[in-house]
Amino acid sequence: MTLIVQKYGGTSVGTVERIELVADKVFAAQKQGHQIVVVVSAMSGETNRLMALANDIQGEFAHGRELDVLLSTGEQVTIALLSMALQKRGCAAISSTGAQLNILTDNKHNKARIQNIDADRLKRLLDAGNVVVVAGFQGVDDEGNITTLGRGGSDTTAVALAAAAKADECQIYTDVDGVYTTDPRIEPNARRLNRITFEEMLEMASLGSKVLQIRAVEFAGKYDVPLRVLSSFEEGPGTLITYEEDSMEDPFISAIAFNRDEAQLTIKGVPDQPGVAAQILSPISAENIEVDMIVQNVGSDGNTDFTFTVHRNDHNKALKVLENTVKKLGGGQIGGDPNIVKLSIVGVGMRSHAGIASRMFTALADEKINIKMISTSEIKISVVIEEKYLELGVRTLHEVFELDKAKAERNQAASA
Amino acid sequence: MTLIVQKYGGTSVGTVERIELVADKVFAAQKQGHQIVVVVSAMSGETNRLMALANDIQGEFAHGRELDVLLSTGEQVTIALLSMALQKRGCAAISSTGAQLNILTDNKHNKARIQNIDADRLKRLLDAGNVVVVAGFQGVDDEGNITTLGRGGSDTTAVALAAAAKADECQIYTDVDGVYTTDPRIEPNARRLNRITFEEMLEMASLGSKVLQIRAVEFAGKYDVPLRVLSSFEEGPGTLITYEEDSMEDPFISAIAFNRDEAQLTIKGVPDQPGVAAQILSPISAENIEVDMIVQNVGSDGNTDFTFTVHRNDHNKALKVLENTVKKLGGGQIGGDPNIVKLSIVGVGMRSHAGIASRMFTALADEKINIKMISTSEIKISVVIEEKYLELGVRTLHEVFELDKAKAERNQAASA
Repeated sequence: MTLIVQKYGGTSVGTVERIELVADKVFAAQKQGHQIVVVVSAMSGETNRLMALANDIQGEFAHGRELDVLLSTGEQVTIALLSMALQKRGCAAISSTGAQLNILTDNKHNKARIQNIDADRLKRLLDAGNVVVVAGFQGVDDEGNITTLGRGGSDTTAVALAAAAKADECQIYTDVDGVYTTDPRIEPNARRLNRITFEEMLEMASLGSKVLQIRAVEFAGKYDVPLRVLSSFEEGPGTLITYEEDSMEDPFISAIAFNRDEAQLTIKGVPDQPGVAAQILSPISAENIEVDMIVQNVGSDGNTDFTFTVHRNDHNKALKVLENTVKKLGGGQIGGDPNIVKLSIVGVGMRSHAGIASRMFTALADEKINIKMISTSEIKISVVIEEKYLELGVRTLHEVFELDKAKAERNQAASA
Repeated sequence: MTLIVQKYGGTSVGTVERIELVADKVFAAQKQGHQIVVVVSAMSGETNRLMALANDIQGEFAHGRELDVLLSTGEQVTIALLSMALQKRGCAAISSTGAQLNILTDNKHNKARIQNIDADRLKRLLDAGNVVVVAGFQGVDDEGNITTLGRGGSDTTAVALAAAAKADECQIYTDVDGVYTTDPRIEPNARRLNRITFEEMLEMASLGSKVLQIRAVEFAGKYDVPLRVLSSFEEGPGTLITYEEDSMEDPFISAIAFNRDEAQLTIKGVPDQPGVAAQILSPISAENIEVDMIVQNVGSDGNTDFTFTVHRNDHNKALKVLENTVKKLGGGQIGGDPNIVKLSIVGVGMRSHAGIASRMFTALADEKINIKMISTSEIKISVVIEEKYLELGVRTLHEVFELDKAKAERNQAASA
């Protein structure tokens, strides 16, 4: 018998009516002869409502053990309601909190990580004929304290359960019907991909594509759980994310990703000496500001320029930290620009094909789009450009790399 | 060190502002050198909101395992918020769900009964210097399923915890400042009692006085937990409920209780033969209708009249059951009256004093109030009267038994 883990997010279970629709989908899947585990998020709006209560008491940065006790009720409400809706249809169903299913995490409240899942109880409930409805986003530490995995952690719960129970597929239901070559709101010719590799998905998730949480993709890759992204509201095969690569058929590039949430910071004319990068970045990370791209140019006259990007929300905070740093370093000019975006091409195919980077840079230059920073990985090239060129850049690259065409068509073109 | 269990109901924790006030009270008690366990209900309105969601799916009579999973989130929200509010004040506090504190119940979902509480974890948390904030109304069965004790069960949780941890006092904070000789809205001379016995309180609770849940009083009596009713919003000593009786000082009567929620049903002219009562009442209880007072008159001509009361909500349902019963019994006229009330005098003092009943009946007769049914226990006399006479009856009895006067004053009058 096939075991499938399905995950429905907050929008998909946002009202009783939508929960009833999810129950229809789940029951239909069970009637096809599958064993089904369903992981759900809190009803949309619920986590924000609870967070507002916590903020009323703790102030803007509510945190800690009790916040997890509070927020974990959101998913608990959904599992009860969905189980009721399934039972009403004559479908045996039982709900389970993270604690009841022994989803063991570390004790880092508000951002815990799953350490172990005892799949025995899950298997027992499934073998008794139940659909098992599990609260996502939550677990329990080894002292029985409730923990949460941080926002969006329900994807991780689903993948971790699929790994622990050796599920045949983990299906993530969202409000989009799959992974696209780029955002269809910017490029109308964007095309749904039938499949994509974990590595590509990982790069896309880290680049700001919001389809899946990056930790969930990492987890799925690590434990080789076939992951499928589908729509909660429409029928369709979605996009399958797998390890399997078929490089003969793979096109150079799979998708164009972008991230509007970044800001750029620069120090010009700092002493070009060992340790200067650490001196600049250590105070930044000490303030819990995450740094994404880092570029240091070759120096001249004993000085060098140092540029990096942070989340746009951290731009002002990072500027202040840099001011102190410059005082200590004894020199340098600080600049910051929150109006930049990161634009990337992603594809395992670029490994085996030279010339991808120059093709990208040429295409952008032809459109007079200035590249401010460049960063590369084995399967990704990212550039920072001015925000106003974002849409033009996306459409240009989508066309140049022929992402509107299906694989076979592109490969024909390439070999012709 | 004194151990005090405090319980705050839904109104007392109905908003974040009120939760902050409760935190002030709790912290003040801890600073007086007490160890404090706080039991809380769901914020007022929350249980109804959750129940409405369940009803949307399950219909009018939502029930079962998943309802407990759903409703138990209400108290979980409160324990988190109150713990945060305490911590903000510099008061070490930790929340605990029923499951986390091993409040073991049977597996009767929606109306579970507490079977055992392992006080070790509670003691450990207290000895570490914490105020322990516990979710009322909920527990866990021996398979780890979440159970609830039914509405109002938070009082029971508080008393059970007090018994298990051998607390010095269990304080129930409500929106009234104690137990009164009768409802002050009906009799302005009603007086707060400084103390009352468990037996009296039990009779009053079962007669519809809403101050405390009857199961909580039973529990407290059984385990000899001193119980105190106080106001969440005003200062004051409240009313202490204890075993200690001081019959020399006890007045005949402690309080006048009443219950508007009853309806009367009568069958006239049924065969006066053994087993007829069972034949009438068995079908009633088979429909889960609870019967309160039962009166069967001495028969004549081989026939008898049989009268009983049920909750007013069950009046129509009970009438239908009786129609079937009469068909089977082969005779009898059915009557029903939903416009009746039960009026009672309660007091351990009546044990040792004759003539209380006749004094009560005479007083009512003087006011032309017709008595339709009478039922007595060792420390209580109840009569059923027409609803329109309720207020007059309460005020008459309150005056006749001099409940507006303090004990000492009344005893002087009695011995003079």
